[in-house]
Amino acid sequence: MKKFGVVDTTFARFDMGSAIIDELNSTGTGFVTVRYTVPGIKDIPVAAKKLIEEQQCDIVIACGMPGAKPVDKISAQVASMGIMQVQLMTNRHVIEVFVHEDEASSPSELAWLSERRAREHALNAYNLIFRPGKLTENAGKGLRQGYEDVGSVEEPKNTGIRH
Amino acid sequence: MKKFGVVDTTFARFDMGSAIIDELNSTGTGFVTVRYTVPGIKDIPVAAKKLIEEQQCDIVIACGMPGAKPVDKISAQVASMGIMQVQLMTNRHVIEVFVHEDEASSPSELAWLSERRAREHALNAYNLIFRPGKLTENAGKGLRQGYEDVGSVEEPKNTGIRH
Amino acid sequence: MKKFGVVDTTFARFDMGSAIIDELNSTGTGFVTVRYTVPGIKDIPVAAKKLIEEQQCDIVIACGMPGAKPVDKISAQVASMGIMQVQLMTNRHVIEVFVHEDEASSPSELAWLSERRAREHALNAYNLIFRPGKLTENAGKGLRQGYEDVGSVEEPKNTGIRH
Amino acid sequence: MKKFGVVDTTFARFDMGSAIIDELNSTGTGFVTVRYTVPGIKDIPVAAKKLIEEQQCDIVIACGMPGAKPVDKISAQVASMGIMQVQLMTNRHVIEVFVHEDEASSPSELAWLSERRAREHALNAYNLIFRPGKLTENAGKGLRQGYEDVGSVEEPKNTGIRH
Amino acid sequence: MKKFGVVDTTFARFDMGSAIIDELNSTGTGFVTVRYTVPGIKDIPVAAKKLIEEQQCDIVIACGMPGAKPVDKISAQVASMGIMQVQLMTNRHVIEVFVHEDEASSPSELAWLSERRAREHALNAYNLIFRPGKLTENAGKGLRQGYEDVGSVEEPKNTGIRH
Repeated sequence: MKKFGVVDTTFARFDMGSAIIDELNSTGTGFVTVRYTVPGIKDIPVAAKKLIEEQQCDIVIACGMPGAKPVDKISAQVASMGIMQVQLMTNRHVIEVFVHEDEASSPSELAWLSERRAREHALNAYNLIFRPGKLTENAGKGLRQGYEDVGSVEEPKNTGIRH
Repeated sequence: MKKFGVVDTTFARFDMGSAIIDELNSTGTGFVTVRYTVPGIKDIPVAAKKLIEEQQCDIVIACGMPGAKPVDKISAQVASMGIMQVQLMTNRHVIEVFVHEDEASSPSELAWLSERRAREHALNAYNLIFRPGKLTENAGKGLRQGYEDVGSVEEPKNTGIRH
Repeated sequence: MKKFGVVDTTFARFDMGSAIIDELNSTGTGFVTVRYTVPGIKDIPVAAKKLIEEQQCDIVIACGMPGAKPVDKISAQVASMGIMQVQLMTNRHVIEVFVHEDEASSPSELAWLSERRAREHALNAYNLIFRPGKLTENAGKGLRQGYEDVGSVEEPKNTGIRH
Repeated sequence: MKKFGVVDTTFARFDMGSAIIDELNSTGTGFVTVRYTVPGIKDIPVAAKKLIEEQQCDIVIACGMPGAKPVDKISAQVASMGIMQVQLMTNRHVIEVFVHEDEASSPSELAWLSERRAREHALNAYNLIFRPGKLTENAGKGLRQGYEDVGSVEEPKNTGIRH
Repeated sequence: MKKFGVVDTTFARFDMGSAIIDELNSTGTGFVTVRYTVPGIKDIPVAAKKLIEEQQCDIVIACGMPGAKPVDKISAQVASMGIMQVQLMTNRHVIEVFVHEDEASSPSELAWLSERRAREHALNAYNLIFRPGKLTENAGKGLRQGYEDVGSVEEPKNTGIRH
């Protein structure tokens, strides 16, 4: 039995945590989920670490919605670096699901984007744990979470490189 | 009995530390508070770590007021990264209560904002320790500390996502 | 027998991982390769660390393709800092092969650049493990991976420095 | 008997280290000082750490003078993050006394500012070790080191906050 | 017998590593040198750490030449933070000798600057190990490596500071 952790915030404007848990449950079985809600984005990393170390989660999905101001962008970067650090301290993946408020041009697009990105990253987390081969099949395929995939690029001809 | 640490600075222009202690005391019981004042924002993280490791605090609330100059913004970022690191080294939350001097348009607004943000983050810290379920109830609700909450966003219709 | 790890992403638009494995195999023997595909660039560092610590890789080559938006540039920086950290935690090299989407002016140039840089860095990794002297021979020679080497610069005359 | 470490650089244009030692000696007794001079600002953090771990300093005061160019600003940020890290690795304060060359409009103002900031931070370090209560008395008072204190801000009236 | 490590890159356009070893050898005795060449600037920190931990170097001099593009500037910052981290993990100095390609206005000036800065930092490293007092003599003297020293600044008169 695997354990998926979900961290989310009261700062975000969409309930991505519920979308993730719903998506995971409709994707497969063999796991349980545990949820941890914190106030803001910079509170996420330690929550993820506690889920891994104190609740034995095998992977964590961390959802946040940085605001549009410069100070929010800095907060997002600090949070990302914390999430990076948690992974390196625990040897567990923490999938970052951040939706920047200024990525969307309307409240309804923001909600749509948040749900879609959350659900697609739930699948990524599921694949990392249960079917890693599916990720390798898609290596270099230009996949995106939320907006449309952009696809691969191709070379015009074979390229000889020097040795 | 829980222990709440409060770190503040002589650099800040409002006594957020006292506001936090007052708010905590009027919110509930079952805890004591300990306060540690340092000169500036970059002195905060080690003070928070000492409160956790040497005084066994269960959580720390860290108050700072970065100035408006670029050099102050860098100091705030370094301090935030230190606060992040403290949390990951100790598995304890350190709630960052930073009020940037240029967030407010007048001295009195700055004071108002500082007090309100301090008090609302005191409640967040209290909830993290004593009633985490209250945070999960508010996941994705667009809560803010200081200025008004911005609320949730909603999708126009159900969104089918690809699998 | 040495072990080379290769980490790549589904986000990238070219399959650099396969190019690297192909290049390594056509360069020499005495090693095996193991591949680990993750969703995005910020998932790379922990994958590299797991390859080193859980699969005993002697070196890892980490391929990513950051997008052109500011948020992608930040992600690349966070990923780079994670890759740095992995190296310092393990005392193993992790060769970063990042191709920024906006380095190339067309999809076919992007593909060409990605393959060439991937293959040239595969040689760098091979040299670090099997023939480090070849790198010292080229110290200060202005080598580049992908686009043309820029070469060395020369002084007009001998320069006396003060003591 | 307490031990104060002082780190300074040959890069700086004013001898802040001597000013700090002089100020400490004229402020009180019960301590010795040890000084460690390095070339530049990025050499400071490891010197501070060595003073703490190899020479048992209880606190370190670290003086640097970043230049005005962008590359110098980055160096200052890297040094600040190193100083932050030293504190978190040792649970000791390292008081950062940085004077940016472009804070002053003339060489003599730069010298004046450097001396004054150095001396005022020497007092901060002294207070952290010998009389921490003096810092708490000044919490939120808008103190500055170098230029004039800016003082506290006040609210126009009591503010009711929601619960 | 002391051991000096020298790390350099094939990316740099001048052979700073050889200049450093030459300068060290013409400055004194009582040490040996060991050299480690890596592809690029972000490969430097782990090489420095390996020299310290696996080859018992007492100090490392790390040479790199960041390019002029924004992506190169970020790489330099990540490398600097890695070098910082190595020092704090090992309690050894790693002297960073970075020459930014855009510091010089011509290829020959770039070569001149690289050699001069490399040699002057070799002296700094030598002094840190063998004659630290020489650095303290020069504290606050405005020394530079490469271009001319800028010297000290002086106060117009004695400055009384408040207590």
